[in-house]
Amino acid sequence: MPRPLITLTTDFGAMDHFVGVLHGVIRTICRDADVIDITHQITPFQIAQGAFLLAQTVPYFPEGTIHVAVVDPGVGSFRRPILVECSGQILVGPDNGVLASVYLDKTHTARELTTDRFFLHPVSRTFHGRDIFAPAAAHLANGVSPEEFGPAIDNHWKLSFQEPQRTSKRAWSGTILHIDRFGNLITNFHIGQFEKMKTVPFSISLGPRRLSELTATYSEIPLGELAAVVGSSGYLEICANQASAQALTGCGVGAPVDLSLHA
Amino acid sequence: MPRPLITLTTDFGAMDHFVGVLHGVIRTICRDADVIDITHQITPFQIAQGAFLLAQTVPYFPEGTIHVAVVDPGVGSFRRPILVECSGQILVGPDNGVLASVYLDKTHTARELTTDRFFLHPVSRTFHGRDIFAPAAAHLANGVSPEEFGPAIDNHWKLSFQEPQRTSKRAWSGTILHIDRFGNLITNFHIGQFEKMKTVPFSISLGPRRLSELTATYSEIPLGELAAVVGSSGYLEICANQASAQALTGCGVGAPVDLSLHA
Amino acid sequence: MPRPLITLTTDFGAMDHFVGVLHGVIRTICRDADVIDITHQITPFQIAQGAFLLAQTVPYFPEGTIHVAVVDPGVGSFRRPILVECSGQILVGPDNGVLASVYLDKTHTARELTTDRFFLHPVSRTFHGRDIFAPAAAHLANGVSPEEFGPAIDNHWKLSFQEPQRTSKRAWSGTILHIDRFGNLITNFHIGQFEKMKTVPFSISLGPRRLSELTATYSEIPLGELAAVVGSSGYLEICANQASAQALTGCGVGAPVDLSLHA
Repeated sequence: MPRPLITLTTDFGAMDHFVGVLHGVIRTICRDADVIDITHQITPFQIAQGAFLLAQTVPYFPEGTIHVAVVDPGVGSFRRPILVECSGQILVGPDNGVLASVYLDKTHTARELTTDRFFLHPVSRTFHGRDIFAPAAAHLANGVSPEEFGPAIDNHWKLSFQEPQRTSKRAWSGTILHIDRFGNLITNFHIGQFEKMKTVPFSISLGPRRLSELTATYSEIPLGELAAVVGSSGYLEICANQASAQALTGCGVGAPVDLSLHA
Repeated sequence: MPRPLITLTTDFGAMDHFVGVLHGVIRTICRDADVIDITHQITPFQIAQGAFLLAQTVPYFPEGTIHVAVVDPGVGSFRRPILVECSGQILVGPDNGVLASVYLDKTHTARELTTDRFFLHPVSRTFHGRDIFAPAAAHLANGVSPEEFGPAIDNHWKLSFQEPQRTSKRAWSGTILHIDRFGNLITNFHIGQFEKMKTVPFSISLGPRRLSELTATYSEIPLGELAAVVGSSGYLEICANQASAQALTGCGVGAPVDLSLHA
Repeated sequence: MPRPLITLTTDFGAMDHFVGVLHGVIRTICRDADVIDITHQITPFQIAQGAFLLAQTVPYFPEGTIHVAVVDPGVGSFRRPILVECSGQILVGPDNGVLASVYLDKTHTARELTTDRFFLHPVSRTFHGRDIFAPAAAHLANGVSPEEFGPAIDNHWKLSFQEPQRTSKRAWSGTILHIDRFGNLITNFHIGQFEKMKTVPFSISLGPRRLSELTATYSEIPLGELAAVVGSSGYLEICANQASAQALTGCGVGAPVDLSLHA
């Protein structure tokens, strides 16, 4: 029997006891869990950023993995705690969109977490990671079936990431979804939707900068210049070679990115 | 047989080889240990901060867990390496107070680590985490009994965190113990000692700011304002809603916090 | 059977999905691997820094450990992916020097990773950690023998860290290799080569500062002053007591350090 796999994605940072407490709670319930810290460095309260990172990561884990995501500005208020079964894996977290990018467009079942005996008592109003989400993951890891946690629901969060908007026949307006550690600007243009960029001339505008090159690797970009690269997740990235495109452009998450195809 | 659990809490940061070396030393002695990084982001040399975080975390781990804490400005000098058995768990670290908040007010047994054969040789003067504490934890995980590590002692560190001082019949002067990732100011007022705040009017002064509201969740606080919240560890926190109370007040760890009960 | 041990050392940082993806890929291939994050905080593209940290860490791991190192500014270009067997452990990463400090001066066998079926397909041009290195480590952990991954090579990277240069009979010119979390300046003077410093007077020049004291522990250094300490890895460090030698000197990685022996 392999050890059950649980991953953690939060905005808790690394300087507090929050992450350690999640680990302790999980091990107390399921002594043998293999717990993997995906990241605890989501910008505080940035649900969309957590959703993006989770959607990039979950597909690389094996069937049966349980993923806990806690980016939860509404902790203790009306938003519901949920679990979602999707593609043979299980997601656990608040119903505020942080899990949604994983299950949208896929067959899935959502449940509200209502079964009291799987909570840590007394349930605090400020730390549901400890009192609701980590315990749920650990009980799932112990083999408790999802139905025991609460009723199926269908009115859970179903909004998608923003997608590029078509602004004319051959032009789209998009945005920067995420900026990675290296300063690469990850846009919401997915190459699956814009295969034509590989064969016809195009231009991308980003603030005052204009790009028309698609290169295959970072190291092909002339030093000090910008180019578009199809990133490892399929999204178009604006990149530099051993330098930060963020620093070179001054652009942040949410900045507009315009694409025109010239054919 | 479950795998032995070892946790690590240090001020080593994430950019050096120190943490990796601890992991290697432990796995070399006890191949099957399950080693959990609580945090390595204690501010360098801040023993009280390490003690606070450890005390918040240890109670959530199962019996038999071995906790290593290394915040050790006096490494290589006179302070003793110790292990402490408390509540079915074992703490390992320097006798400088970093472990004390876990065992104070509890039945416990302390021992000095003197048994040479459990050290990594030659024992450096600058990295006892590698040469003394991690090996001790790994040998404990292998089932070596605490008595084999050295003699019981009774003159180990027994000072407590500072507690609020009573300044008049209904007034206390306290302080900020810790500031978390979200900028919440964690005070040393524990709700267990101040249950009256739930039922009688009160005021809290923090620099020029004055608060008289106790709210149950962060999201109930009006945007841009401050309120007191009973944190998930029972300590009173000064908080804002999706904003940093630290930034709003300019207060740091150690700043005075005054409480008056109006009944 | 102990679980296979895999370590990860990268410049991926903690805020992206890269690290989580490596963990997922490894667990998908080798469900039972015990994966240890050495550090993901290598400064982006700083191969020499990664090589230094890896060389400090690897010797503390048990036989059979598999180490993955990804600091890879040339990803997707001509540099080869390799594996190196050395001292009973296996290193996996790009052939750009990041692994070299571990195997130089030791008997070792290097192989180019060419066997297509051990890659994750399609192999991206920008994320070989995911598509080549992590899968190789996981297949090795499953017991695939190194020969199956590709042909032995002998023209792999064999340059060493820079060593101190002798400038006169009793003088050497060295440099700062690394600055640790505490601001200690780790030089490239190894005590094994300069045992005489323990018995004869010496002076070290670092910018405008001059030192002539070798102390055994950080806590012996007078507050506010600098001294040389033989660090836990044998390299001479310029240190302060509970303060940052980096801040006190203003020196960075690569700054010159001159040593004179006065006998």
